[in-house]
Amino acid sequence: MAGNTIGQLFTLTTFGESHGPAIGGVIDGCPPGLEISEEEIQVDLDRRKPGQSRHTTQRKEADKIRILSGVFEGKTTGTPIGLVIENSNQRSKDYGDIMELFRPGHADFTYWRKYGIRDYRGGGRASARETAIRVAGGAIAKKLLNHVAGVRIRAALIGMGDVMIDRANWDWEQVEQNPFFTPDAQAVTKMETLLDAIRGAGDSVGATLELVAENVPAGLGEPVFDRLDADLAKTIMSINAVKGVEIGAGMAAGMATGAAFADEMIPGEDAQHPQFLANNAGGILGGISSGQDIVIRFSIKPTSSITIPRRTVDKQGNAREIITKGRHDPCVGIRAVPVAEAMVALTLADHWMRARAQSPVG
Amino acid sequence: MAGNTIGQLFTLTTFGESHGPAIGGVIDGCPPGLEISEEEIQVDLDRRKPGQSRHTTQRKEADKIRILSGVFEGKTTGTPIGLVIENSNQRSKDYGDIMELFRPGHADFTYWRKYGIRDYRGGGRASARETAIRVAGGAIAKKLLNHVAGVRIRAALIGMGDVMIDRANWDWEQVEQNPFFTPDAQAVTKMETLLDAIRGAGDSVGATLELVAENVPAGLGEPVFDRLDADLAKTIMSINAVKGVEIGAGMAAGMATGAAFADEMIPGEDAQHPQFLANNAGGILGGISSGQDIVIRFSIKPTSSITIPRRTVDKQGNAREIITKGRHDPCVGIRAVPVAEAMVALTLADHWMRARAQSPVG
Amino acid sequence: MAGNTIGQLFTLTTFGESHGPAIGGVIDGCPPGLEISEEEIQVDLDRRKPGQSRHTTQRKEADKIRILSGVFEGKTTGTPIGLVIENSNQRSKDYGDIMELFRPGHADFTYWRKYGIRDYRGGGRASARETAIRVAGGAIAKKLLNHVAGVRIRAALIGMGDVMIDRANWDWEQVEQNPFFTPDAQAVTKMETLLDAIRGAGDSVGATLELVAENVPAGLGEPVFDRLDADLAKTIMSINAVKGVEIGAGMAAGMATGAAFADEMIPGEDAQHPQFLANNAGGILGGISSGQDIVIRFSIKPTSSITIPRRTVDKQGNAREIITKGRHDPCVGIRAVPVAEAMVALTLADHWMRARAQSPVG
Amino acid sequence: MAGNTIGQLFTLTTFGESHGPAIGGVIDGCPPGLEISEEEIQVDLDRRKPGQSRHTTQRKEADKIRILSGVFEGKTTGTPIGLVIENSNQRSKDYGDIMELFRPGHADFTYWRKYGIRDYRGGGRASARETAIRVAGGAIAKKLLNHVAGVRIRAALIGMGDVMIDRANWDWEQVEQNPFFTPDAQAVTKMETLLDAIRGAGDSVGATLELVAENVPAGLGEPVFDRLDADLAKTIMSINAVKGVEIGAGMAAGMATGAAFADEMIPGEDAQHPQFLANNAGGILGGISSGQDIVIRFSIKPTSSITIPRRTVDKQGNAREIITKGRHDPCVGIRAVPVAEAMVALTLADHWMRARAQSPVG
Repeated sequence: MAGNTIGQLFTLTTFGESHGPAIGGVIDGCPPGLEISEEEIQVDLDRRKPGQSRHTTQRKEADKIRILSGVFEGKTTGTPIGLVIENSNQRSKDYGDIMELFRPGHADFTYWRKYGIRDYRGGGRASARETAIRVAGGAIAKKLLNHVAGVRIRAALIGMGDVMIDRANWDWEQVEQNPFFTPDAQAVTKMETLLDAIRGAGDSVGATLELVAENVPAGLGEPVFDRLDADLAKTIMSINAVKGVEIGAGMAAGMATGAAFADEMIPGEDAQHPQFLANNAGGILGGISSGQDIVIRFSIKPTSSITIPRRTVDKQGNAREIITKGRHDPCVGIRAVPVAEAMVALTLADHWMRARAQSPVG
Repeated sequence: MAGNTIGQLFTLTTFGESHGPAIGGVIDGCPPGLEISEEEIQVDLDRRKPGQSRHTTQRKEADKIRILSGVFEGKTTGTPIGLVIENSNQRSKDYGDIMELFRPGHADFTYWRKYGIRDYRGGGRASARETAIRVAGGAIAKKLLNHVAGVRIRAALIGMGDVMIDRANWDWEQVEQNPFFTPDAQAVTKMETLLDAIRGAGDSVGATLELVAENVPAGLGEPVFDRLDADLAKTIMSINAVKGVEIGAGMAAGMATGAAFADEMIPGEDAQHPQFLANNAGGILGGISSGQDIVIRFSIKPTSSITIPRRTVDKQGNAREIITKGRHDPCVGIRAVPVAEAMVALTLADHWMRARAQSPVG
Repeated sequence: MAGNTIGQLFTLTTFGESHGPAIGGVIDGCPPGLEISEEEIQVDLDRRKPGQSRHTTQRKEADKIRILSGVFEGKTTGTPIGLVIENSNQRSKDYGDIMELFRPGHADFTYWRKYGIRDYRGGGRASARETAIRVAGGAIAKKLLNHVAGVRIRAALIGMGDVMIDRANWDWEQVEQNPFFTPDAQAVTKMETLLDAIRGAGDSVGATLELVAENVPAGLGEPVFDRLDADLAKTIMSINAVKGVEIGAGMAAGMATGAAFADEMIPGEDAQHPQFLANNAGGILGGISSGQDIVIRFSIKPTSSITIPRRTVDKQGNAREIITKGRHDPCVGIRAVPVAEAMVALTLADHWMRARAQSPVG
Repeated sequence: MAGNTIGQLFTLTTFGESHGPAIGGVIDGCPPGLEISEEEIQVDLDRRKPGQSRHTTQRKEADKIRILSGVFEGKTTGTPIGLVIENSNQRSKDYGDIMELFRPGHADFTYWRKYGIRDYRGGGRASARETAIRVAGGAIAKKLLNHVAGVRIRAALIGMGDVMIDRANWDWEQVEQNPFFTPDAQAVTKMETLLDAIRGAGDSVGATLELVAENVPAGLGEPVFDRLDADLAKTIMSINAVKGVEIGAGMAAGMATGAAFADEMIPGEDAQHPQFLANNAGGILGGISSGQDIVIRFSIKPTSSITIPRRTVDKQGNAREIITKGRHDPCVGIRAVPVAEAMVALTLADHWMRARAQSPVG
């Protein structure tokens, strides 16, 4: 009820604040018999880790994952998988200002109104640091989906501010070869230029991301409320700073006509697998996966941790001005790429298990 | 787990198919002491009801709500509220084609892959008819929110196909005075012209909607997964035909810079209620309501029930052509207005109760 | 959260008060393809129905079940199954006394303290009438369990007040041949004599019941909290008037020694099915079914609706005396037999689906 | 769904195996503002800790609790509370036998049938070691209940094998002054004698426990399925080795008559607090707390880890004989006292929050 668990059958619960002793989580519901290791999980964690290039925050966090339970002799046992990452690099500093002021665009004000109390150090629970455990849990979900159905989930940055990629240049290989996770090699220089300027100005910039999940079996998703697209929208919107989510044609669907929009079908490899002639639906019909690629786009707002002074108030309601110093990401959208993959993997794994439970008995 | 319940503390469970004996639902968790009547619920149901103008389906459905339990002497008792609407107007017809063919863009194919069996009459469970019970349940949620916090939730159609309203003309009074729920009186004629053309061509058209929730108390929403924006994205995406959801600045946030985006604050009526100078956040910061208006935009795809022939396959995988006859909405987005209000009300009522449970004890 | 739903994957939600328009419920999560009909459900409802002999309440309730959804052409479709029973026999009477007084041993006082408001007519939501929908839902669960695993669930009355059966006379055939659902034909006359005396004195009497579930597959139950025995204890204790629950040896286990208690094993039909030499465990080890018969015993307290005057207070806290008139069961334990079968079926069906979701992937 | 979480609003999720790196858990939903410290939690952990006398297992476990999150400057923040206890004393030994054989009365066989794989070292997930985290979480629940309502929860051992206490000697002070948590000082010597004999014989013995919760506010519990007694029965039965649970009069209720059983009421301190003349109900009416003491009795079976040889089978289905060596509790019921207090505290805290969410709005 307090919102720190996602999923119903394959669940991840996370805990931990940015500057507490550790962050951690529990994967519950993973079936027994899946091979998994700390090393595999670490791969995704390292993709999310800050300080990988000059374009992300220069904080150094080891982000070393430790599996505390649920894996025996290299395989899941069906019992809960405890995960912990010790917090190692809490720079000692004076939080006096943040204690009393509400950073505009931050969760400071709303946490104060909700809880009356908050761990203000480094953003506390609202810090993006929490997403490290999502990535760890998502790595297990990815492994499961890949093992049972060959599912592949990949995200990419398709826009930084107003620098949008040219889709004609899309190359998945590129994504792991530049600091922006962008699939358009020709956009990299433009993004570097933009980001250097943004960082120089003490400002930040938003981003647009796209995620594609391939080989998702048809039949995942639960009408009427837990539609696959509804749960994917939630899982993506649960990532810090996301403001919009689109499935398939997305917002453009509102401007289309029916004749142009419906994805026609022709005979495919067999009766269960017709060929679709388009994918405006983004792989989901009536809330259930169709077997087509699932396609999601979403926006990440620019972080409000900037050194340009902004007007705000303090706890007593007085007018103040704030400058947010520290080692912040000028474009938080970059590191959202592995986080989005993790969240989609968690949601698909959950729905895969739900479909498994409910398969026909007739 | 099977997805027919929404909410955790204030829940709605729905059941029923388009052409079965009845549709119905259960509201569980509504606190005792709230005045509610069938008449109040009927008001919202009548707004959703088809056949109100030539622009929606000409099916005649009485949509008469019946409260079976949980209300005694005009007030809720805290026990579950059973709701039923008998299905009265199932036109007898030959479903032979739909039994065997998959309508492109419909849930026919995915239900078949998921369940192996389906009630194909009139769309069965995938029919928009199910949303009538959402509207009924939402009316109770609206009443609760209004009673405890003066919350007001209103939606409007801001675009039909490529006919977008002029925001300068926005007038909430207009919304209930035209058949499109649009707030721009000057857009009505253009929409009529468009829709007559679309209907004449046997085609359909998408729509864009916007919803505003006023007076939502600060402090609703549960980090980290059940953020208010995440749950709102899910609740909106759970409505049939929605393909994109935006909170506040939405997809445009990906193109913004931090200095321009963060909503600055200045002193307001008191320390708990500062004044925000903008609302790019759409009333939600860190997943928690800030007290500002909550603003949501979303798209509704054009219905795929059109009389223009489309290519498809049958259950045996053979190539076929399909024309979907019947009394269909040329723009399903119109009737989505009261449905969206209901869904947002259900989600806000749920989070209001969650916040109530967790208020500080210190 | 409001407690009207049981189960996680195979769920029953009930609604309705004794003297409202109808009682009803929703089964959600039943897999598609199961044959089920109103007639089959009615069989169990008729076993629970009052007025079947002079030994139960003489209220006449038709208890006619109606399936509103989720079943198409005789088979479940995987969508929620709506169930309704109209209330037909609400005897018009003056409830003045019950409105103001708290019947000792009844829920009157606690509902008032919890909700501040209650439908006092005929017990309202606390009435045993609500269990009719449990029996209806349980009939579907029984059918599922029988279809997928040949499970058979049978309960019997083994004690009425201090009249206990002789276990040497146990004959399941007898259970459906006497008005007490007792397996000992020789106990019937003693029970009749007791019950006539109790009824004559305006008093009531408690009962002890036993339930056996055969052919339950090994492997059901989720350590550590949702152990099968824990969930069975809950499901049984959720039945009106139950005060004690025992699994296998039950309370006597506290007096046993380890050498005597552990159920030894010898080779059985195959490695997966050893033979157990005793069943002190009642078919459950470590919270997981072993494949042995599941054996549960429980007590039902005597109803407090008696015509012997009792001391009580009214809403203003004044001393009063109360006599509860009406058509009450002198031994409510009798009609608890089909209710217990239903509850155990619901819980086993839920765990069967949970086990299905989590089966090994290795 | 995988059963490692208890509660709906105030939840505890546990993870960890007996011989893994650590055990841990997450408390989610605790309201902000509650003072809590590792030291307070440690007090209850030390009561449960083995090796406190010659009568419990001689394993040495430090059981040192570490709070990883959710507490800031000595108070809860409303965010999840991560808890970890490192496993320090895993004696290196040869588990060859246990790997292949199923100990009668143990979870060995059922885990194998359920998961196909298990961490057999020291009982793995089925080990009573997991209850250390329950005690830690329960300490937080106790603190909350005490803070908001002055609730006091105490359990005691009232029978060891066939040595039952004399209730006339009941003295709560005694409970913390003998190694058995028994309230009857005169029973201590008899219990010592019994236990020395049992241990000498390589056998084990069961126990009977009683728990009393005082000052529980009226109005907790959710009809119809999540009755307070139903959830208490589950929470108690979820403790390793429990085989029977009684509320108030318990199994004896089945033998009573209505006139004797209903707890009469007379005027008390005010209209909301009448005086009850008896407590056969055990403090719960219609599934809702009445304000009387909540009284629960339950049995703990003798552990099956004994050195008397027992017949069993191995994984291949062959007949074998087994002797369970190691440092086992001859009476596991003793250490169940703090565990039961913790479980009841968790369940009452959960229901206190549920009642809070649903309080009347009229």
